[in-house]
Amino acid sequence: MDRKNDILVPMDVPEILKSTYIENYNRITKSTGRLMLFAGDQKVEHLNDDFYGSEIHIDDADPEHLFRIASLSKIGVFATQLGLIARYGMSYPNIPYLVKLNSKSNLVKTSQADPFSHLWLDVQRVIDFRNHTKLNILAVGYTLYLGSEFEAEMLHQAAQIIYDAHQHGLITVLWVYPRGKAVADEKDPHLIAGATGVAACLGSDFVKVNYPKQMNKDSKELFKEAVLAAGRTKVVCAGGSSTDVKSFLQRLHDQIFVSGASGNATGRNIHQKSLQDAIRMCNAIYAITVTGDNVEAAMEIYRSGG
Amino acid sequence: MDRKNDILVPMDVPEILKSTYIENYNRITKSTGRLMLFAGDQKVEHLNDDFYGSEIHIDDADPEHLFRIASLSKIGVFATQLGLIARYGMSYPNIPYLVKLNSKSNLVKTSQADPFSHLWLDVQRVIDFRNHTKLNILAVGYTLYLGSEFEAEMLHQAAQIIYDAHQHGLITVLWVYPRGKAVADEKDPHLIAGATGVAACLGSDFVKVNYPKQMNKDSKELFKEAVLAAGRTKVVCAGGSSTDVKSFLQRLHDQIFVSGASGNATGRNIHQKSLQDAIRMCNAIYAITVTGDNVEAAMEIYRSGG
Amino acid sequence: MDRKNDILVPMDVPEILKSTYIENYNRITKSTGRLMLFAGDQKVEHLNDDFYGSEIHIDDADPEHLFRIASLSKIGVFATQLGLIARYGMSYPNIPYLVKLNSKSNLVKTSQADPFSHLWLDVQRVIDFRNHTKLNILAVGYTLYLGSEFEAEMLHQAAQIIYDAHQHGLITVLWVYPRGKAVADEKDPHLIAGATGVAACLGSDFVKVNYPKQMNKDSKELFKEAVLAAGRTKVVCAGGSSTDVKSFLQRLHDQIFVSGASGNATGRNIHQKSLQDAIRMCNAIYAITVTGDNVEAAMEIYRSGG
Amino acid sequence: MDRKNDILVPMDVPEILKSTYIENYNRITKSTGRLMLFAGDQKVEHLNDDFYGSEIHIDDADPEHLFRIASLSKIGVFATQLGLIARYGMSYPNIPYLVKLNSKSNLVKTSQADPFSHLWLDVQRVIDFRNHTKLNILAVGYTLYLGSEFEAEMLHQAAQIIYDAHQHGLITVLWVYPRGKAVADEKDPHLIAGATGVAACLGSDFVKVNYPKQMNKDSKELFKEAVLAAGRTKVVCAGGSSTDVKSFLQRLHDQIFVSGASGNATGRNIHQKSLQDAIRMCNAIYAITVTGDNVEAAMEIYRSGG
Amino acid sequence: MDRKNDILVPMDVPEILKSTYIENYNRITKSTGRLMLFAGDQKVEHLNDDFYGSEIHIDDADPEHLFRIASLSKIGVFATQLGLIARYGMSYPNIPYLVKLNSKSNLVKTSQADPFSHLWLDVQRVIDFRNHTKLNILAVGYTLYLGSEFEAEMLHQAAQIIYDAHQHGLITVLWVYPRGKAVADEKDPHLIAGATGVAACLGSDFVKVNYPKQMNKDSKELFKEAVLAAGRTKVVCAGGSSTDVKSFLQRLHDQIFVSGASGNATGRNIHQKSLQDAIRMCNAIYAITVTGDNVEAAMEIYRSGG
Repeated sequence: MDRKNDILVPMDVPEILKSTYIENYNRITKSTGRLMLFAGDQKVEHLNDDFYGSEIHIDDADPEHLFRIASLSKIGVFATQLGLIARYGMSYPNIPYLVKLNSKSNLVKTSQADPFSHLWLDVQRVIDFRNHTKLNILAVGYTLYLGSEFEAEMLHQAAQIIYDAHQHGLITVLWVYPRGKAVADEKDPHLIAGATGVAACLGSDFVKVNYPKQMNKDSKELFKEAVLAAGRTKVVCAGGSSTDVKSFLQRLHDQIFVSGASGNATGRNIHQKSLQDAIRMCNAIYAITVTGDNVEAAMEIYRSGG
Repeated sequence: MDRKNDILVPMDVPEILKSTYIENYNRITKSTGRLMLFAGDQKVEHLNDDFYGSEIHIDDADPEHLFRIASLSKIGVFATQLGLIARYGMSYPNIPYLVKLNSKSNLVKTSQADPFSHLWLDVQRVIDFRNHTKLNILAVGYTLYLGSEFEAEMLHQAAQIIYDAHQHGLITVLWVYPRGKAVADEKDPHLIAGATGVAACLGSDFVKVNYPKQMNKDSKELFKEAVLAAGRTKVVCAGGSSTDVKSFLQRLHDQIFVSGASGNATGRNIHQKSLQDAIRMCNAIYAITVTGDNVEAAMEIYRSGG
Repeated sequence: MDRKNDILVPMDVPEILKSTYIENYNRITKSTGRLMLFAGDQKVEHLNDDFYGSEIHIDDADPEHLFRIASLSKIGVFATQLGLIARYGMSYPNIPYLVKLNSKSNLVKTSQADPFSHLWLDVQRVIDFRNHTKLNILAVGYTLYLGSEFEAEMLHQAAQIIYDAHQHGLITVLWVYPRGKAVADEKDPHLIAGATGVAACLGSDFVKVNYPKQMNKDSKELFKEAVLAAGRTKVVCAGGSSTDVKSFLQRLHDQIFVSGASGNATGRNIHQKSLQDAIRMCNAIYAITVTGDNVEAAMEIYRSGG
Repeated sequence: MDRKNDILVPMDVPEILKSTYIENYNRITKSTGRLMLFAGDQKVEHLNDDFYGSEIHIDDADPEHLFRIASLSKIGVFATQLGLIARYGMSYPNIPYLVKLNSKSNLVKTSQADPFSHLWLDVQRVIDFRNHTKLNILAVGYTLYLGSEFEAEMLHQAAQIIYDAHQHGLITVLWVYPRGKAVADEKDPHLIAGATGVAACLGSDFVKVNYPKQMNKDSKELFKEAVLAAGRTKVVCAGGSSTDVKSFLQRLHDQIFVSGASGNATGRNIHQKSLQDAIRMCNAIYAITVTGDNVEAAMEIYRSGG
Repeated sequence: MDRKNDILVPMDVPEILKSTYIENYNRITKSTGRLMLFAGDQKVEHLNDDFYGSEIHIDDADPEHLFRIASLSKIGVFATQLGLIARYGMSYPNIPYLVKLNSKSNLVKTSQADPFSHLWLDVQRVIDFRNHTKLNILAVGYTLYLGSEFEAEMLHQAAQIIYDAHQHGLITVLWVYPRGKAVADEKDPHLIAGATGVAACLGSDFVKVNYPKQMNKDSKELFKEAVLAAGRTKVVCAGGSSTDVKSFLQRLHDQIFVSGASGNATGRNIHQKSLQDAIRMCNAIYAITVTGDNVEAAMEIYRSGG
């Protein structure tokens, strides 16, 4: 499916960079409009908890594992911090990169202080880095904690980043999580729809949110409100913590083909596996997200390596 | 009524841009000096509460609903965030736009922390965006919480925005709400008159305030103090939460033709309806605000679609 | 009395702008070195409390009242916010203006948080505005709350403003009020002398302070300490809340001719009257402050309209 | 003693300004390497407490007193705020000046909030002022409260100021006082040695600290630790509050010739006296500090006026 | 061992400065990839506690001691503040320097407030200083307190510094310490591995962490997790407080040759000794770290002076 002709380039992309934007958009969505985002920013977000432990393959202890997976699997884009890209990019020049522009550790809990994730580097530095390295930096990302006492500063930074990224033809992904003392239920479907609506007002191309959950309700139905509220901003969903591959893939399929999401952002469910398993997992996720395969076909890819 | 000759252009508009200012002013007021502002910034301010629920038409779940209404109805200006305009503007190039420059969610309540709504993007970026897109961006808006512990920063930002907007010939609308632990009664008519006076000192063209309310007093009489205090700054009033169309229109007529207000800013009373009802509602509001019709005539428009 | 030859131009005024400074100084002091400042910044500082109420003439409800008074009376300078000047200046081009650069509302009390009044616009914008409008902008003003927990930021802003204003030949007036949880007695004469000394260290041309008060002491004698502490910075004093005209004028006369103050800053005692009474009051104050008349002569002017 | 040849110019002074630095250094130390600093910044630091009261000569009530002393006595440098210099410099063009770059009042006590003294004006403005006025501005000063919760910001500002001052060939003096809720004993000799070490790491030319005090210990011996810790940064010591001239001079002599300090910073012990007494006091202090006289000889100067 | 050919220059180093980076890298690691960092920034971090006391040789009381050691011993790089370098660099031009860009005192404890160490000077000033002085400034350093409530600001500064330093071909060393109310055990091996992972995501060349400790566990085994998590960022370890030379050297040998660390950062264990002992200690540490000697050989160097 070639969507080149029906991409609605946001109007903060300058005329001269519309073709760059379209090219970037098509590269990270493989011209399907659906995004398979391999998330690799957790070495700050979760420190070493996601990378080393009894349930985690030892391959994951070395950050290069992320790059190996990203380079050997089918993915849309690999999201991580610029510093890590600067150290591994020369060995993995073909990976499609998203630079995650802010990150925080998980040490200070919400009970102590509301979350604030501060910009590390501005878009101009990312552009300079891209131009100098010729790496495939196609997108930038930013995490926003809606309902935090620091929401104002993060909304400000997010608005600037999206505007500036579009000025340079980059694609944007916002991670929007309701979190803070004011947030009683982070998985409330109505609140998650609020989060995708905020991303729409900020003008982001994609917004990543958590999958809603409500007692005795069907998440894939609940999730439709968020997809609708996002309008032309496309919704991608967290993979969650499930470790059963089939139910993971089934949920992903539901998110996209029932709820109407436009992809997924998956980290731990991929990189905590051995390199070979991680590649098979990526390819299975890709099969559903990008190729549009059903769960059985994806499971077959997972089993065979795709 | 053509007011072209009696518009008092504020002196922070440069000589060379006075004709731009006058043109913008006349476009958003249809040369009547009265403003029908269709407010569409609530996807951040109220998250999805205003757009999805049992009392709300399903049309409103998709942000494009706002643009459809704005393009198919008689309005003075449609106010929303730049990011949303960037995503829909190519499909709705004829809407007269006001860029709302700050927004916050409603998650953190005043009992937890006083409100602070931070600038998202500065005026220069809006101007660049307007010049590049050729969209009809005629005005900018900013919300200021008077009496908040963060009042100082918001007064600073508001002063800068108004000065900078006028430097480029844009019209300004301030939303001024007394709010915070220090504010006992947000609807106190004397306090609301203080709010319009602050807007006058900031030099805004328009100020939107809430309609005053006091036990056993007539709001339309009470409101005169605020209109008077605003001086040459024009006052527009919230539509409020009423859902009975006739009483809504009656109140609007009173605000303008009894109290002396110069228009209205209405959101939920319009967009929570189906597209067809929303258009009829807009046109009825427009009839009173801009055309100067009486309530009966406006009701007829609402019933017939205008 | 022509003081042109004995004005000590502060050394942060560039050589080329010394004649501008001297001209501005002479215009606001009518070449006497004494300043009659008509204060019109209270629409933010006191919201509508000073402009509407049972003891206040209805003329005062409209901000234009301030401009009418300023244009029809004898005054040295009219102090108000730039935004208000931008909206009325075209109708009142002959008023000598002082732009008040910061303001805050009175909603948050010191018991809740120490006062902070933030800069609205910097001196460069004021200069640009003056150059473009050709208005008589002769001076800038800034309020500093000494002893507030935010004192550091206000001292910083005040120092910058005075330096920058002098760089452009503008006259500076500081309002210095000891206020905050750390301040037990705002009228303590020794503390007020501290305030005028701070203004001297900041290099301001004029400093406005409150009139000291101490049990069983004569304020006009107590006030001498503050005048002495100010050195070459000239002290102007608040008119206070008195409504008896004669005792108001007597106190003013004492401040200048007994204590050694160099003028007054009066707001409410002027503008809360009808236009005609306000003009008579201004002229009477002017007679004492600038002409050097005695109280009887000034009362005669007040009675006759001067 | 001519030390021109053995001055170690810090390496952040550009080659082309080394002669300026050496000239400034020699002027404030009279080519002895020892500094007699007349401190006149207390009109902010202590408000009018140091200038008016029963134990204070009435001459001190007028800020010009400071300039009269500085111009008529033997001193190394006179330290005060730029604003005051701007108002008196034209009358006292021969005084060697140090611009004190930050100051705070004494109203907010440490029990309420830790101390923060914010930069008033940056070094560039001081240089512009010097170039324009041709005044003898030889040095800049900054106060740093070590152990305050605002220490981080003050360390940052101090580092910038020293670097920038040296870039322009100016001499720097840091006032370093351990103060804040975390500081139990401000006179602890070990802590004061920590303070001089911090000044060394910041690269200041001089550091002014309080004289250490410890029960049953000899302060002049205790003080050696601080002199040693300062390395190539020279230590000057507070005069303290003593009013007995002879013991004041004896302590000063001890500080320099026993402990190894390189001068003194004295304010109240000078300016609270009448002009004539203040001049005699300055000259006596100068005799010890700069000339290297013994206490008897200095007392003779104090008695005779020098 | 010449590693010139296998240095992976991070991609944020511009093409034209890659040879500078490689040269700097080889100079501080003596072309072995292993770093012997002599830490001399404690005069701020620990005030005079590390330099003066009953267990400390009197040589250490004078800051020049640090420069004497650094110039007379075998070291990779000497880390200290720019101000100190500016005052001693002319006498010690051959020392390889690392400029420590931030520092704080130890007065405010975590129980009072979480730690924040603020940037003193930016990379541009360091580069200007290097260019002007021709000193061997090869690297910059920054301390980051992970888990502090001020983590966000320090992550932001660290990211900027590393990017900017690499832009100029400088080597970067991050000191990463988990600290703050949220941190229960600063020596937790899993948390320290989190810290090295954060440094990797920030893109630093080296990260200095504390040696992990866990009851009944072998630290040199525990430490492997951190080395692995750092990926291509090299780990250097604190010397700790041990004063027994042999066990110090044994631990160092273990860190490098068992755990896989790439060097050490040692301060007190060196400079608290007399000059001669300090030199012998440096040389012994160098023998293990850089030459790759075993503990016996290093002890022989310590005994003989090397």
